[in-house]
Amino acid sequence: MAFTLKEIADMVGGEVMGDDQSMITGISSLHEGSKGEISFFADHRYKDAVKKTMATALLVSKAIDFFEGSQIVVPNPALAYVKVAGLFAPPVSKFSGLHPTAFIHESSEIGENVSIYPSVYVGEGVTIGNDVTLFPGVFIGERVKIGNNTRVYPNVTIRHDCIIGNEVIIHAGSVIGSDGFGFIRDGSVNIKVPQIGFVQIDDLVEIGANNTIDRAALGKTWIKRGVKTDNLVHVAHNVVIGEDTVIVAQTALGGSAQIGKGVTIGGQVAISDHVKIADGVMIGSQSGVGKPVSKGQIVSGTPAMPHRLWLKTRGLITRLPQATERLRNLERKMAQLEKLFKKDK
Amino acid sequence: MAFTLKEIADMVGGEVMGDDQSMITGISSLHEGSKGEISFFADHRYKDAVKKTMATALLVSKAIDFFEGSQIVVPNPALAYVKVAGLFAPPVSKFSGLHPTAFIHESSEIGENVSIYPSVYVGEGVTIGNDVTLFPGVFIGERVKIGNNTRVYPNVTIRHDCIIGNEVIIHAGSVIGSDGFGFIRDGSVNIKVPQIGFVQIDDLVEIGANNTIDRAALGKTWIKRGVKTDNLVHVAHNVVIGEDTVIVAQTALGGSAQIGKGVTIGGQVAISDHVKIADGVMIGSQSGVGKPVSKGQIVSGTPAMPHRLWLKTRGLITRLPQATERLRNLERKMAQLEKLFKKDK
Amino acid sequence: MAFTLKEIADMVGGEVMGDDQSMITGISSLHEGSKGEISFFADHRYKDAVKKTMATALLVSKAIDFFEGSQIVVPNPALAYVKVAGLFAPPVSKFSGLHPTAFIHESSEIGENVSIYPSVYVGEGVTIGNDVTLFPGVFIGERVKIGNNTRVYPNVTIRHDCIIGNEVIIHAGSVIGSDGFGFIRDGSVNIKVPQIGFVQIDDLVEIGANNTIDRAALGKTWIKRGVKTDNLVHVAHNVVIGEDTVIVAQTALGGSAQIGKGVTIGGQVAISDHVKIADGVMIGSQSGVGKPVSKGQIVSGTPAMPHRLWLKTRGLITRLPQATERLRNLERKMAQLEKLFKKDK
Repeated sequence: MAFTLKEIADMVGGEVMGDDQSMITGISSLHEGSKGEISFFADHRYKDAVKKTMATALLVSKAIDFFEGSQIVVPNPALAYVKVAGLFAPPVSKFSGLHPTAFIHESSEIGENVSIYPSVYVGEGVTIGNDVTLFPGVFIGERVKIGNNTRVYPNVTIRHDCIIGNEVIIHAGSVIGSDGFGFIRDGSVNIKVPQIGFVQIDDLVEIGANNTIDRAALGKTWIKRGVKTDNLVHVAHNVVIGEDTVIVAQTALGGSAQIGKGVTIGGQVAISDHVKIADGVMIGSQSGVGKPVSKGQIVSGTPAMPHRLWLKTRGLITRLPQATERLRNLERKMAQLEKLFKKDK
Repeated sequence: MAFTLKEIADMVGGEVMGDDQSMITGISSLHEGSKGEISFFADHRYKDAVKKTMATALLVSKAIDFFEGSQIVVPNPALAYVKVAGLFAPPVSKFSGLHPTAFIHESSEIGENVSIYPSVYVGEGVTIGNDVTLFPGVFIGERVKIGNNTRVYPNVTIRHDCIIGNEVIIHAGSVIGSDGFGFIRDGSVNIKVPQIGFVQIDDLVEIGANNTIDRAALGKTWIKRGVKTDNLVHVAHNVVIGEDTVIVAQTALGGSAQIGKGVTIGGQVAISDHVKIADGVMIGSQSGVGKPVSKGQIVSGTPAMPHRLWLKTRGLITRLPQATERLRNLERKMAQLEKLFKKDK
Repeated sequence: MAFTLKEIADMVGGEVMGDDQSMITGISSLHEGSKGEISFFADHRYKDAVKKTMATALLVSKAIDFFEGSQIVVPNPALAYVKVAGLFAPPVSKFSGLHPTAFIHESSEIGENVSIYPSVYVGEGVTIGNDVTLFPGVFIGERVKIGNNTRVYPNVTIRHDCIIGNEVIIHAGSVIGSDGFGFIRDGSVNIKVPQIGFVQIDDLVEIGANNTIDRAALGKTWIKRGVKTDNLVHVAHNVVIGEDTVIVAQTALGGSAQIGKGVTIGGQVAISDHVKIADGVMIGSQSGVGKPVSKGQIVSGTPAMPHRLWLKTRGLITRLPQATERLRNLERKMAQLEKLFKKDK
């Protein structure tokens, strides 16, 4: 694949500085750029990398004088880069039509231009929109609804009655609609509470690989529009996650936790049952959040505290041996002083 | 579906206060109850919710005077609720019989009324009891034994020689009998120690989604009767987990750890290799447990400490900056006093 | 299966002390040894176990006088034991040939003596070496290359363009080549950055169950020769892991992290994006590593600190209540002294 700089500039709505007929054959990072490739420059910390890169062209927010190649000036170079990257992405296959070794229940409704790979299972009463791709080993339980343009990667399980929106991506091995973890003690024995709710995943959500998103005990577990989860994330029953929230790998959200809009949660975080996180909150990785966090706060640590406080306390933790030594010194001096003072009297 | 209050009362062994012919068409939480639904009241903190609920009837432990609808008096309302919930659970499908696209080795023994979905693999010498369901994508390795009434959800892998009891539930994506993580160093290289044991899972165990339960190096990894694990739990080789123990999501049990009966382990806990946890212990979420914990103790934190101590220390961690300031003040004052004292002399 | 002690000694290059014709029918740990079994003794802490064991023979590094059975003297008894264990491992099945219910794209190249189980998917342009085993439910995306003698356990997903070496083992449920977690904010919305790189896994690597190893944004995520990962490990995009490094369960490596050779990383560790860990480093379990760690260091805790310091600080954390009490006492005494001193003047 090759495009002229002009073709690329037109696609991203930018202006070419330099030879607009030079051919671009790939994308690269600044550090790895080589001839024929285009990269982007958006962070002045990488000025030195620009000087050394062999890339033929750069996407920039305003023309720079420390780069000899061609430039495309665009308002947001990183965003433009994302669009250009799409041009050079390896072809993503799509199995055409419904493979005969897939099991597709006769009562299911399948949209147009749907791709169902071998070994897929589609249960009774399922509804699937247009342009959906179900990769091998995907399980779609009874009465599940899937919107248009959604991709479900291999070996994903979506259990009965869940609702998946449009343009959703679910990565391989994830489980949607497993039973919530609910038991009632009867003496020493734990009796299972039937989990009779479902999971709703709204448009433009992306779920990472090997996530587990439990169905609600009653009602729904709800992942709202534009949420993105990384790999191995756990979402317990009845959790609600607000629009455009981002959750990094191996984080766990306890039962009925309510996460606001535009929240950023780092990796390996634990949020306790029923805890409410307001809009725009940021939570540092490995935090343990047992109490509500109010709008726009940045918290870290276990127990979660304001991030600036955490930066101080974590430094002080590593200096606890010195602090203890100082305490011991003071105690010694105090004892001496007290002795002297009494003697003195 | 609809039942009279009397029918429900008879099922749970309760007594109706009010119109025993009123029709119940569903269950709900107190907060979401609407007409025709039944809920339960077991915790006096929710008294206000009772006053506001639109539910038609409540399960209660003794008659209450702040609710206008009907009541069913039962010894344990929560437990009765669980039974009623079962009445209204959505129909769970069961593929009838053995699907022709499943691979079932001719030497395997399959019980009565077994449901084997498409794309299941059942290996040589497998024994499967009655009323078992194997969902699509399930892999059953050589010589595995599965008892009666067990459900194995989609894309679960059970490797060779494992033993699964009666009325076991294994949620989607879990792996039973993967090799334990054992290597011996030979210079800089790690040589794999053959993992030639197996996993035994006893009756009434429920394993969450995307768990990994490793086979023993020798002998067995053993999950005893009634154990419940949440999602993404890791159980290393040769671990033993006692009866009725409950383990919350993303917890890891190190090799040969021995967990007692009736233990409760929170989420994201790490228990080190060979550590012994006695019966009835409770372990708070995100704890790091490197030492044995004796009977009935409640521990939290890293390193794990008595829970009450952890409640204090975690508060003190957030006050380390003030403590350090107090220490500095004392040091200043001490220096002044010492100076004055010497001058004074 | 049964072997004479002589046969076993010859296999491991050892010398028999005792009856070299006695029959060995199995292996065992020292603690569980019974008649006919062979175990090994390499750690003097287990001297008592040797005295009590019922094992018929022991592998030892030099002859011992506190064991009555036969002995095989070898330079490295643990390593010899590993070889002997291989003799007694249960037969691992191998489906012979390519099962007709597997989907194998006509353009793929399959080596000799390859075993492809039912419900496997092999995409367009795939190359598979000799003696490879693909268990049921395995997905191999377009243009993937797999070397010789590699085993891929059930329900593993290997997405397009990844490269897997020789003698690699990938345990059940793992996902190789899922999209890296990369987004660019456009207002409140997160735009997906196409992940157009791949994953390369070199020879002799073993990947645990339910791992997630993301493809690079550009270039490759690279797991080098001899690396071993335990279960539920997360490897983000563009990570590089050096030769013979070992990673315990539930650890997460952030994007572009660079891990050296011969590193040992405990369980539930989080390593931040772009962090560089030098060769031979050891990292304790549950650590949070946000900064580079230099060659040969041993670190633990959050934030990661030298292991010896962590051993001190973690003890001091549990004694924070006493330290606070001592601080309070000092403040009281100081106030008294100051008062007396002033009065005294």
